[in-house]
Amino acid sequence: MSEVKQGAQLYEGKAKKVYATDSPDQVIIHYKDDATAFNGEKKGQIEDKGVMNNKIASGLFELLEKSGLPTHFISRLNERDMLCKKVTIVPLEVIVRNVAAGSMAKRLGLAEGTELKTTVFELSYKDDALGDPLINDYHAVAIGAASFEEIEKIKALTFKINDVLSAFFLKKGIKLIDFKLEFGKTNTGELVLADEISPDTCRFWDAKTNEKLDKDRFRRDLGNVKEAYIEILNRIG
Amino acid sequence: MSEVKQGAQLYEGKAKKVYATDSPDQVIIHYKDDATAFNGEKKGQIEDKGVMNNKIASGLFELLEKSGLPTHFISRLNERDMLCKKVTIVPLEVIVRNVAAGSMAKRLGLAEGTELKTTVFELSYKDDALGDPLINDYHAVAIGAASFEEIEKIKALTFKINDVLSAFFLKKGIKLIDFKLEFGKTNTGELVLADEISPDTCRFWDAKTNEKLDKDRFRRDLGNVKEAYIEILNRIG
Repeated sequence: MSEVKQGAQLYEGKAKKVYATDSPDQVIIHYKDDATAFNGEKKGQIEDKGVMNNKIASGLFELLEKSGLPTHFISRLNERDMLCKKVTIVPLEVIVRNVAAGSMAKRLGLAEGTELKTTVFELSYKDDALGDPLINDYHAVAIGAASFEEIEKIKALTFKINDVLSAFFLKKGIKLIDFKLEFGKTNTGELVLADEISPDTCRFWDAKTNEKLDKDRFRRDLGNVKEAYIEILNRIG
Repeated sequence: MSEVKQGAQLYEGKAKKVYATDSPDQVIIHYKDDATAFNGEKKGQIEDKGVMNNKIASGLFELLEKSGLPTHFISRLNERDMLCKKVTIVPLEVIVRNVAAGSMAKRLGLAEGTELKTTVFELSYKDDALGDPLINDYHAVAIGAASFEEIEKIKALTFKINDVLSAFFLKKGIKLIDFKLEFGKTNTGELVLADEISPDTCRFWDAKTNEKLDKDRFRRDLGNVKEAYIEILNRIG
């Protein structure tokens, strides 16, 4: 893969940059160490986070692809770069919640860790100025962010992804509490999982101790932030 | 209906009181003049609102019953009292939005009056302490507020109610912008429309001028509050 040529920067997000390649169908995604929380209000860096998240996300995308779930992932190029299919991102954050935590726990007045009567599928509208507000399927369609058919496809993929990831992490002694996904459409119109899967975008709790092994350690100043990322990387191998 | 005996007060809400009757299956709902907004932060009175809303809601419940849609309404007893089936309220506020306004317009960054690509069905969790937060179907099931089957029934009824009411009001020169419904289960387990339908719970705009004929006149200090309720009552006859 050393022949992939990095072209112009197409986009810079909070934790990643996207570069063009010689192919109109492929991009390079570069993982940064920058960490943000609370819609960018809190900013910092986590040493080598980009390196670790690139490895973690690559492994998880490979796992999903092997399970027949389509992703944008093509290959890991080097420490911080991933080669991916170029996609147009659906402007929705898709959140799966297996256990109450974070914003949902607060919204519903539930203690973190509360078991839920059903797995929750949540959508937020990707709009920083509006604070990525929680919306439902109808809102998404009403504003033209997606069609009902696309949302149904996203839902079906998301629940399968949750099954694969939850089972995988449980074997590694980790509870997958909740996670955020983004989907995109390739140049051929295929809907695929995009963005990343990492301790930046998932809540991972140690299955025995409930110790937090994710970005909540940064959000909530719990210390041992880098160590949590290392722990996840080591456990998933 | 003069033989209905008012028993003990069972409940007092922001705009209504509920009394027992001699029948365990029936209650008297008493309409007050009290008006509140912004989850009770703004309080006031609208002269004769209770009388007008009792008339308006009675007429609209009768219209829905004639259209085959089940409601808790039995009969209007007098100026401020309505005889209804006793129900256990499903702790969800069901909101239908035909045009962007109010909290949804704010949440999605839309100008009031924006046309939507689809009618929006919204759920809020009825909990004053939490501020009646917006939720989705999964949240409702996850916290035990309703089952997926109940939500599907509520959705189907709600869209039919919207069709009947929107067509009815349009004939009266009124656009039904959005409205809030509550559902309840009778002692025999039937799911029926409960609560009220009135300018307290609907946004009504004059079809020609877009003049607001609802509680937004109170919420936003637009003046002519009582007159708006009178106008709605006069138009629906």
